[in-house]
Amino acid sequence: MSLNSVSPDFMAALGADLPEGALRPADPRYLHEPRGQWTGQQTMVALPRSAGEVAAIVRHASRHAVGLLPYGGGTGLVGGQVAPAGAVPLIVSLERMTAVRAVYPDENVLIAEAGVILADIQAAAEEAGRLFPLSLAAEGSARIGGNLATNAGGTGVLRYGNARDLCLGLEAVLPDGQIWHGLKRLRKDNTGYDLRHLLIGAEGTLGIITAASLKLSPRPAAMGTGLFVVQSPRAALSLLSLARDQLGDMVSAFELMHAQGYAFLAEKLPDVRQPFDSPPEWSVLVQLGLARGMVPQDALEALFVAAADAGLVSDGLIAQNEGQSRDFWAIREQIPEANRKIGSISSHDISLPLGALPEFIEQARQQIAQVGAFRINCFGHVGDGNLHYNVFPAPGASRADHEGDRERIKRVVHDLVHRMDGSVSAEHGIGRLKVDDLERYGDPAKLSAMRAIKAALDPKGIMNPGAILRAP
Amino acid sequence: MSLNSVSPDFMAALGADLPEGALRPADPRYLHEPRGQWTGQQTMVALPRSAGEVAAIVRHASRHAVGLLPYGGGTGLVGGQVAPAGAVPLIVSLERMTAVRAVYPDENVLIAEAGVILADIQAAAEEAGRLFPLSLAAEGSARIGGNLATNAGGTGVLRYGNARDLCLGLEAVLPDGQIWHGLKRLRKDNTGYDLRHLLIGAEGTLGIITAASLKLSPRPAAMGTGLFVVQSPRAALSLLSLARDQLGDMVSAFELMHAQGYAFLAEKLPDVRQPFDSPPEWSVLVQLGLARGMVPQDALEALFVAAADAGLVSDGLIAQNEGQSRDFWAIREQIPEANRKIGSISSHDISLPLGALPEFIEQARQQIAQVGAFRINCFGHVGDGNLHYNVFPAPGASRADHEGDRERIKRVVHDLVHRMDGSVSAEHGIGRLKVDDLERYGDPAKLSAMRAIKAALDPKGIMNPGAILRAP
Repeated sequence: MSLNSVSPDFMAALGADLPEGALRPADPRYLHEPRGQWTGQQTMVALPRSAGEVAAIVRHASRHAVGLLPYGGGTGLVGGQVAPAGAVPLIVSLERMTAVRAVYPDENVLIAEAGVILADIQAAAEEAGRLFPLSLAAEGSARIGGNLATNAGGTGVLRYGNARDLCLGLEAVLPDGQIWHGLKRLRKDNTGYDLRHLLIGAEGTLGIITAASLKLSPRPAAMGTGLFVVQSPRAALSLLSLARDQLGDMVSAFELMHAQGYAFLAEKLPDVRQPFDSPPEWSVLVQLGLARGMVPQDALEALFVAAADAGLVSDGLIAQNEGQSRDFWAIREQIPEANRKIGSISSHDISLPLGALPEFIEQARQQIAQVGAFRINCFGHVGDGNLHYNVFPAPGASRADHEGDRERIKRVVHDLVHRMDGSVSAEHGIGRLKVDDLERYGDPAKLSAMRAIKAALDPKGIMNPGAILRAP
Repeated sequence: MSLNSVSPDFMAALGADLPEGALRPADPRYLHEPRGQWTGQQTMVALPRSAGEVAAIVRHASRHAVGLLPYGGGTGLVGGQVAPAGAVPLIVSLERMTAVRAVYPDENVLIAEAGVILADIQAAAEEAGRLFPLSLAAEGSARIGGNLATNAGGTGVLRYGNARDLCLGLEAVLPDGQIWHGLKRLRKDNTGYDLRHLLIGAEGTLGIITAASLKLSPRPAAMGTGLFVVQSPRAALSLLSLARDQLGDMVSAFELMHAQGYAFLAEKLPDVRQPFDSPPEWSVLVQLGLARGMVPQDALEALFVAAADAGLVSDGLIAQNEGQSRDFWAIREQIPEANRKIGSISSHDISLPLGALPEFIEQARQQIAQVGAFRINCFGHVGDGNLHYNVFPAPGASRADHEGDRERIKRVVHDLVHRMDGSVSAEHGIGRLKVDDLERYGDPAKLSAMRAIKAALDPKGIMNPGAILRAP
């Protein structure tokens, strides 16, 4: 079934069921996405204030067979939030649903509407003496509905899991316009199929999340940050293993960085303080979240000594105060910005079984060298097996020189990931960017089940048409 | 569409595609379930040795429109594994698929076939220096495929989550006979709808799990067990909050017990050592799993002192060695057996928002007292909000005296749970026992989505027909 574009008739019918001001022409900000790969078609945006209003929008869209584009903070990196072609959809922005409906500190639960900005949820949790551990670069503008729709990852996954692991329940509008009232605050609830986990990660293709019941955690009594120089990615993994043997899940982040990242920082962001005289080829940022009575510097010192005895680390810095900790984190957090300023030919959000990571890094380097001369910045959440693997022109060359290599590099990286049982989208999702990759690398049985589910729940295909699955 | 019973023609066709010995008449053990509420109809059992053989079974069942009853350890408590009426299905027992296919200690991953007994997985993890934290009473006979199909809970949920939280990937045969090869070892993989979480908890109604990639954890460096007397369920929750403030997620179990449980133990299992001279009205079993360098007795002592200062605890015992720890656990673990020997009128596996638990316990007691004179044993995984709430005849009375009260008690308990935003099936699932309850209490939008998913993935309704959803 083909969809209709947003039309004056449709808008008039919809407008009659919504309060004044709920419909507007879409500002340019709704039509652009962070990587600048696509531009959305000019359209209208709906700004509902309640699940009931979202339901009215969905019912009208279903009746008129008009596509809906759910919109959170607009920070997604795979084009899930823009419709550059095809029938023109209505954008549904959740930005007016920004209430934290309730906080239950003793239950470690917070209930937020879909439009609450991630950083505001972190702040509300902190105010209640708790931690909402989802943490990622875009947290100042990303909204929780989008974080859940894309099953966002970030730096806290090692210890606390992905967005889906932090969600106890959802309120959502399904494609038939029914509101699912699923805002449970329960840790155990085995009453039928887990619709929550189906909507999480579905990128708005099976319904629109309007609110979520979120899992909070106790705040660690103390935090510690160390920056250790490791011999190799393999040594980094051994260090992780050692750290978890010593500290269990008090290891809360474990981020790998390559010398290329330090070099890009020095070149493009010279204000970021460089902690080493010369950038180590491989280094790891370790963060600990400790129980009461434990001293971060002691725990990191003990880890360093054991790692040095095992020949895993050759140098290391342990933050002595919050300022130093922030400096260490700034390095990791500014690498993506430095990358952007250099300008990558091709960037990849991949994951691998932990044990396969060192071999992947070596093989990918060799295979890319066969394509040509490039700089590689490979970094990321190595504790989760998640690498951001970005390929840049050699010094003196430009992106434009390598337009023709982009596809080939992508194929080299993704083929290798696939052969090693990895994922071609670790934390960003499929969106529109990776629809082809999903078709190429996805398990056929899973793909046919996904298509059957999509057709069953959204028979007219109005929900984020063209994202994840090609519109039929 | 109505199903056909297992017939000689069907068995002959199926037999031609399976090795000798893979089909047998069902022994009585396949036709009974632990609570003795149902008896399955006499039928045949298929004993596949591979996903390929399961797929052949599914394809034949689909072609002949014969129902399939997936069978793990047979320990389910809601009748998901028996078909007492309707077209006679074929039982598919995974008991011959018992290989631990691989263990990756450095990745904290173990891959097991669906028929591996839970205790054997725990043992394999331990042998690799790791922990597989799913732990429940039936672990000596329950099989991991069933644990996942029912999203089993148990005593480790507070710290480690339900079965679904311990699964990284699945291999499963879908209702169309396709094998989904989804045994990923990844912590992050955002490539489309999460079929894994859809099959987990679906109780075999959407496919048959044949193997799973499971998440292991570091073994805590030291374990500690305390048995604390609390004033009330509310004090128990405050104690939990205090414990998590002090120890974060090193609190690995938190089990509430009522005096009634101790009394039943004294009456029916006098060999179980009673730790207190007179049973406390409310007590809590606290288990800690500690990081290196921490002393369990010191941590529990510090917790007790702080709790006593806050007026939460009046007495307490701290296990000084493994034997004492086992004794404390024996009390908790033998309560269900003592209950069974007393004979409950009505037993409930419910969960509530943590904050609502004290009020639920009080209101349920009052409302049940209005039905008649009963003994209530309320105990369980209070850290997860999960109570096993069992109602027994008054001393001198028998179950038979109360046959007429069973439905009324159940309605009182479940209505109250529902009103307080709880769940009428916290960890056991729906099976056949709670199909009515799901229809009564389930969210209508969720139920219609569930029915649409079932019809889309299993249009002939061959997968565990009548479980969770009434056969159409």
